[in-house]
Amino acid sequence: MAVLASGNGTNLQALLDDPVVRPWIVLVLSDQPEAHALERARARDVEAVVLAPAFHPDRTAYDRALREQLEQRGIEYVLLAGFMRIVGPDVVRAYAGRILNVHPALLPSFPGTHAVADALAWGVKVTGVTVHLVDEELDHGPIVLQEAVAVRPDDDWDSLESRIHEVEHRLFPAAARALAEGRLKVEGRAVHILEGTDD
Amino acid sequence: MAVLASGNGTNLQALLDDPVVRPWIVLVLSDQPEAHALERARARDVEAVVLAPAFHPDRTAYDRALREQLEQRGIEYVLLAGFMRIVGPDVVRAYAGRILNVHPALLPSFPGTHAVADALAWGVKVTGVTVHLVDEELDHGPIVLQEAVAVRPDDDWDSLESRIHEVEHRLFPAAARALAEGRLKVEGRAVHILEGTDD
Repeated sequence: MAVLASGNGTNLQALLDDPVVRPWIVLVLSDQPEAHALERARARDVEAVVLAPAFHPDRTAYDRALREQLEQRGIEYVLLAGFMRIVGPDVVRAYAGRILNVHPALLPSFPGTHAVADALAWGVKVTGVTVHLVDEELDHGPIVLQEAVAVRPDDDWDSLESRIHEVEHRLFPAAARALAEGRLKVEGRAVHILEGTDD
Repeated sequence: MAVLASGNGTNLQALLDDPVVRPWIVLVLSDQPEAHALERARARDVEAVVLAPAFHPDRTAYDRALREQLEQRGIEYVLLAGFMRIVGPDVVRAYAGRILNVHPALLPSFPGTHAVADALAWGVKVTGVTVHLVDEELDHGPIVLQEAVAVRPDDDWDSLESRIHEVEHRLFPAAARALAEGRLKVEGRAVHILEGTDD
């Protein structure tokens, strides 16, 4: 498994702290040389690689380089843990049904990069977290897990995002476990999770 | 308060069964002469009126007639309880901030008349119920209450709709109470519910 992350890497940390998922993770890759996620990887003896967009002429070239990084290490599964780039069609096709993303809203509500702010601006009383398989449309693939998070009357962006993160840190490792153990059964847009020995 | 309903009227029944809301309801209006909602009204000594679209040349004329029916009875608040017509701009403007609708999904996900089927087709793991103030855009106005409903692996349309209805029958009367008691404070898209003596 490779984990792709651009920032602080709290979702990566939750994956590294999961005893079932941890042994699967052999690579952490970031587009940001300063991403704290890279240090989290090194601290757990996981290879940390920077793939900087500046060294690639366009998205297609970046996507091809990303695919090479993954394939030359025999990566089977890809986990997007706050990777702030759109993974291109070359990688999505090569890893169809094997890329997970975590999104801070109940998709199809609030796709895109400002999901928490958008939910607050809309005035919803319930938002949440979605873990989904990645397809070629943004924040669109078959849903593996969702969990609701209530918006409180006094919530601001910080307080709401913090409660959403807590749920992400539980849901994403659970979905990664199911993916690694071959327990995801996808039929069209329906994802069934077969029960695992540790559930 | 007037309750507008087109069908069986289970949401109307939940409103009639609420001791705080019941005394407010002075009219049940349907576009369908055969709507069971009309009988539910008569059984509780509430005036039941049919406003059949066939007797009006177009939507504008229907909307005007609807507004007349409401205004000649001094109706202050309108509750859409499964009314399968779009309430036109004439009524929406006259009753701005005073019309509630109940929708069987967590808006902005799955607007429209097939919300439960759409949620199943998308493969979401969480859907729910929204009670919102009505504005001139379909299923769009400020949200008063929302509650999540988990989709189960073996759910079909009947089983999921049945659990959604249970939540509607709790949420819609609660929102109607707050509306009638002047406890809804709307700021842009944010709706705050002030605490009531019975809550």
